[in-house]
Amino acid sequence: MVYTDLNTPIRTIMTPGPVEVDPRVLRVMSTPVIGQFDPEFLNIMNETMDLLKYVFQTNNQWAYPVDGTSRSGLEAMLCSVIEPGDKVLVPIFGRFGHLIYEIASRYHADVYTIEKEWGEVFDPEEIITAIKKINPKLVAIVHGETSTGRLQPLEELGKFCRENDILLVVDAVATLGGVDVKTDDWCLDAVIAGTQKCLSVPSGLAPLTYNDRIEKILLERKNIERGLSEGSINKRRIQSNYFDLSQIQDYWSPDRLNHHTEATSMLYALREGLRLVKEEGLKARFERHLLNEKALLAGLKALGVELFGDNRYKMPVVTCINIPDGINDESVRATLLHDFGIEIAGTFGPLKGQIWRVGTMGYSCSKKNILHFLGAFEAVLIKEGAQVNRGEGLQAALQVYDNIRGE
Amino acid sequence: MVYTDLNTPIRTIMTPGPVEVDPRVLRVMSTPVIGQFDPEFLNIMNETMDLLKYVFQTNNQWAYPVDGTSRSGLEAMLCSVIEPGDKVLVPIFGRFGHLIYEIASRYHADVYTIEKEWGEVFDPEEIITAIKKINPKLVAIVHGETSTGRLQPLEELGKFCRENDILLVVDAVATLGGVDVKTDDWCLDAVIAGTQKCLSVPSGLAPLTYNDRIEKILLERKNIERGLSEGSINKRRIQSNYFDLSQIQDYWSPDRLNHHTEATSMLYALREGLRLVKEEGLKARFERHLLNEKALLAGLKALGVELFGDNRYKMPVVTCINIPDGINDESVRATLLHDFGIEIAGTFGPLKGQIWRVGTMGYSCSKKNILHFLGAFEAVLIKEGAQVNRGEGLQAALQVYDNIRGE
Repeated sequence: MVYTDLNTPIRTIMTPGPVEVDPRVLRVMSTPVIGQFDPEFLNIMNETMDLLKYVFQTNNQWAYPVDGTSRSGLEAMLCSVIEPGDKVLVPIFGRFGHLIYEIASRYHADVYTIEKEWGEVFDPEEIITAIKKINPKLVAIVHGETSTGRLQPLEELGKFCRENDILLVVDAVATLGGVDVKTDDWCLDAVIAGTQKCLSVPSGLAPLTYNDRIEKILLERKNIERGLSEGSINKRRIQSNYFDLSQIQDYWSPDRLNHHTEATSMLYALREGLRLVKEEGLKARFERHLLNEKALLAGLKALGVELFGDNRYKMPVVTCINIPDGINDESVRATLLHDFGIEIAGTFGPLKGQIWRVGTMGYSCSKKNILHFLGAFEAVLIKEGAQVNRGEGLQAALQVYDNIRGE
Repeated sequence: MVYTDLNTPIRTIMTPGPVEVDPRVLRVMSTPVIGQFDPEFLNIMNETMDLLKYVFQTNNQWAYPVDGTSRSGLEAMLCSVIEPGDKVLVPIFGRFGHLIYEIASRYHADVYTIEKEWGEVFDPEEIITAIKKINPKLVAIVHGETSTGRLQPLEELGKFCRENDILLVVDAVATLGGVDVKTDDWCLDAVIAGTQKCLSVPSGLAPLTYNDRIEKILLERKNIERGLSEGSINKRRIQSNYFDLSQIQDYWSPDRLNHHTEATSMLYALREGLRLVKEEGLKARFERHLLNEKALLAGLKALGVELFGDNRYKMPVVTCINIPDGINDESVRATLLHDFGIEIAGTFGPLKGQIWRVGTMGYSCSKKNILHFLGAFEAVLIKEGAQVNRGEGLQAALQVYDNIRGE
């Protein structure tokens, strides 16, 4: 069979990731590669670490990507810190809490869970009460749960964990770069992110940061691989070699211990994506996400559809819509995709078929996209037989943007 | 600190990887992304699987990449097949044999090794003798050992393993796309490759293939993660979630079970790299690698430097040169890099400081690069005080190319 030139459609991507990639990021990916130990490449690695610290809002020494998709960073952090039998508390309020449970359990942690109905988040006191009962070594929790569109407050939890010498590991895959993630101020010991959401870089790297409390464990478990060192085996060594952060840290240190071959073009992309965040500034970037969310919500309300979940803890970058009675989830999404070139998402688990999820992340989070979506969404709902307030959605959204312009 | 536009030098990369990337591959990486469940993306996934089967020379049902660098594929395969206590035989003839040992050992295999002096390979009978003594569940071995530049013959070993119902897992990271890797003809049960070597795609994916003997084990150990399934835990489940090939296989199957978010731009790159291999044709591609190796060897011989290792088992895509007495490894490589813009490699372990390694892989394997290197290498050796036959190297290499043209 003959395969033609790559020839993909241009989509308006309004999912909770992967989202549209900034053209400047796409452009740097075409840069010819250089070797992983080329001095010029080492500069790029160092610059990327510095830029990550800005975005993570941290003074930690360590901030670098794991070479894999978002969940690779989560697994790297969990398996590097968890030893068999360690008590781990996982508060679950959606699919990705279950993923943390799954990973911790595969690495033989003694996992405890508390759960919330999908669509809600935890009152910090509920988690603190569980901590007092269980006394875990670490708490691992999702910040922005894309499966339900909820944002878990972390500040109070972080301060409690720090005061009680419990480690707090946070999955900020869906929030970093779109919503405040205050690593240091909130006392988060480790934070893991993804590239393909609010950073608007293609999927394939998992940036993370951690402090000296985590590093202490890594150094205790350190075991340089055979072929590079002939030392004896550390009985506490990290089970995975690829995800062994004690070795990956050395790769990112001035020692440049050979581990993997850094994913050159993806690192170029990450650096450019982070540079774009820094140029825009975190404050302005978060305000842009809030403004577009406001316009979207005004439009949806005027159109007459209902939102899902506890509105007080809504993620600004994900909006969940209850699918109206009698309307078919997949049919609406297929028409949006094939006729309008717009992708939105369904969801997983207990909510599958009940809600749509609209992402407004990174480069995808623009006035153009919000207005394009609202117009298309109204048309598709009408076509499918739903009752909506014709013409009202776009007017309400435009009014939000016009008011801002007039301020 | 302000970071400037990405501004990297153009290098002539003559290492055993990462090597220069074909401009067509670089170009497709700038393609805007689409969603991971977009029907158009599913086509791209299927096409990539088909192209991989061509390059792996296999009729296996399964051939897809793991999202990580080469060693992620190795770890995924080993941890998906190895269960604690399984006997694994690892014949070691360089650094990457040690890496296989390291990974198998971290996953609690009962690992047995046989070792060869660096620079040699195994007579298949030596491995077969060890197998008879140990009776392992699987043998895991490197095909092209870049740390020493040696190529291990596999055909006889493969046939013996198949006849005796032993699994054979092969690390072909450094050979796929540059040297024959006959997955089916040689009876290899699983083969793992990398992108940044003879495929001339940036680092970041690890293509692999496996047959139904391996798949049987995956299906027995299958355990769909929490959040997608509420089933009971399979006691034999694969330890790593990210590297769980039983789930990744479902992601690449028509079921499209959600696991990770496929690294979109890297997949575009891999597809284009594979398409280039298919357009050139495996036979012509291997001949190109042999011709350039021939010219390089003629040039080095005429120049008067010595090659390292057993010449009968030399990798065509890696040439190891003994560093002449009194000549400094790093000084030569630094001058090549900074003055001539050429990168070659040193090596690891017992041979560190004793040999240089010159890669002639994929897009880097060209007449232009060979001649550029030979001229620069002579100049640097003279500058560093080595005795060489001035002017002879390039003449000998040109003669090889001219003879071919005259044939």
